[in-house]
Amino acid sequence: MIHFPERAAFEAALHTLPSPDHLAIEAAAARQGQLTKPPGSLGRLEDIALFMAGWQRTARPRIDTIRAAVFAGNHGVAAQGVSAFPPAVTAQMVANFHAGGAAINALARACGAALCVVPLDLDRPTGDISIEAAMSEAECLEALNAGAAVVRANIDLLFVGEMGIGNTTPATALCAQAFGGRASDWVGRGSGVNDAGIARKEQAVTRALALHGAACDGPFEMLRRLGGREIAAIAGAILAARMEGVPVLLDGFICCAAIAPLAATAPAFTDHCLAAHCSAEGGHARLLEHLRLRPLLHLDMRLGEGSGAAVAAQIVRCALATHNEMATFAEASVSGAL
Amino acid sequence: MIHFPERAAFEAALHTLPSPDHLAIEAAAARQGQLTKPPGSLGRLEDIALFMAGWQRTARPRIDTIRAAVFAGNHGVAAQGVSAFPPAVTAQMVANFHAGGAAINALARACGAALCVVPLDLDRPTGDISIEAAMSEAECLEALNAGAAVVRANIDLLFVGEMGIGNTTPATALCAQAFGGRASDWVGRGSGVNDAGIARKEQAVTRALALHGAACDGPFEMLRRLGGREIAAIAGAILAARMEGVPVLLDGFICCAAIAPLAATAPAFTDHCLAAHCSAEGGHARLLEHLRLRPLLHLDMRLGEGSGAAVAAQIVRCALATHNEMATFAEASVSGAL
Repeated sequence: MIHFPERAAFEAALHTLPSPDHLAIEAAAARQGQLTKPPGSLGRLEDIALFMAGWQRTARPRIDTIRAAVFAGNHGVAAQGVSAFPPAVTAQMVANFHAGGAAINALARACGAALCVVPLDLDRPTGDISIEAAMSEAECLEALNAGAAVVRANIDLLFVGEMGIGNTTPATALCAQAFGGRASDWVGRGSGVNDAGIARKEQAVTRALALHGAACDGPFEMLRRLGGREIAAIAGAILAARMEGVPVLLDGFICCAAIAPLAATAPAFTDHCLAAHCSAEGGHARLLEHLRLRPLLHLDMRLGEGSGAAVAAQIVRCALATHNEMATFAEASVSGAL
Repeated sequence: MIHFPERAAFEAALHTLPSPDHLAIEAAAARQGQLTKPPGSLGRLEDIALFMAGWQRTARPRIDTIRAAVFAGNHGVAAQGVSAFPPAVTAQMVANFHAGGAAINALARACGAALCVVPLDLDRPTGDISIEAAMSEAECLEALNAGAAVVRANIDLLFVGEMGIGNTTPATALCAQAFGGRASDWVGRGSGVNDAGIARKEQAVTRALALHGAACDGPFEMLRRLGGREIAAIAGAILAARMEGVPVLLDGFICCAAIAPLAATAPAFTDHCLAAHCSAEGGHARLLEHLRLRPLLHLDMRLGEGSGAAVAAQIVRCALATHNEMATFAEASVSGAL
């Protein structure tokens, strides 16, 4: 299991990222060319099969074990009136996850993912990023490691989600800090805040960037100052997945914002990631461009929890079903192209 | 079971299309508003749940039984060199479907659809549409009824696919005849024909339109003169589904072209249809606009067989999983919006 004993270990990992197995990708591509279909006619399903082959280091990647992890955290900045929902909803929704009644429960069941729910000190919100750092160094490390702890090398596919009233505000700050632009370039409605709430959110992000920007000398400091516990946990989980060679389906805006500091530092960081979907949250399309990822789905979802990734996991299953179960031209005695 | 005893019965059905149950749609929408998520945050999954509610005439639509039907036919126009593959491949692929080795077999298994394969007189290709009508009136009726025969009122969701070397050529002709434009506006590469093949295809469609255009006085005559057996079967199946109140997932270019004559006559015809995906075939995006449908997926697929619909069936399953399995705010004791 991956563990980051200190900040330096986390940042060093970003400079020694493993690559996919190019021989496995070539072998998977050769197999695709022999399957009973016109070459390329399964489109992105073929790309997904090759992606999975590269990270599972085999020409015949499998998808027996899908791990889904939902991290929850509370945010001091919620006191600024940046969300449509009260902070108590974070813990209420965690109870709903445990009882099996949330969207992610239904969608994880549908795609056959084993779901784990990780609440992170919900009774101790992070600092309000518009006036102080979100976390101490120890708190940030603890959250990163809580994320890393859900990853095992034998997982075939990982996706992560989040719950945290107010968390599109730190996510917006992380995007602007990692990739530039002003708060207004990245801000969106989150769970459905009104125009006055949007204005408060934009002001909070602007103040946070002014306060912390100069001190953000790397991805750890960005996550510590501008992030949140569930956000750091997502970053830790996705980095640990890379270190273990586990492919990842990214969910929506928060999930992608959590790795923005890592991708800004190491542009190849997202190589082990597929973007599940482009959410309806304002900044997500722009963020995916910065992450150099083309989303699989455009379904106007904006729920978080890992819900978009759970839907896209079905697409990955379809890709591997065709890759592994189809007959070749020779096996089926089908003539090739003229 | 629906059966069209003669051409007039087929065309009359288009003038007495049933509507969805608007009370069931309202009840489903009310339920969506009470589920533990911000209103609208599941995006198109919510729309799909309402669509299914309307056609299944219940606030809690189910998806226990998915029927997938693949129709196969051969085309006289293939002799004009319009395809990258030889006509013998149609029967070879039908054998592959029966043996379980094609993409649609893997994808139907993945989405839990019961697949039936319906070869239609493969040893008797239709007439070459560039010099004669594809079918006689009796042959066209027989094909329509072969399609209608796969539909039962107790199916929760239907999708149909096709296999037929050369069939993007009649499909292209049907699009141009139904919705206007020239052959060049609708033509694409099908299974991967080269530039010379594209030119031959465009010429064949242009000749077919000049020969049959004036005589195409309705959807039956369009299908009979410019279509093919598997194409007419698809039209028959999707019309029968409407008459039985069964919702339909449309596959790619051929599937949509098969209903173009019906939708041109009765614009509300596609109300019981979801467009599974926008394929990579040239004319499909334009065709979907004419059908007034927004595709669920954009995965660059262009295989046919019902493959795109089988992938999208997973999205419909996700939509109903959330609609039926999620807890309400009251059930989960979660606070609503501020």
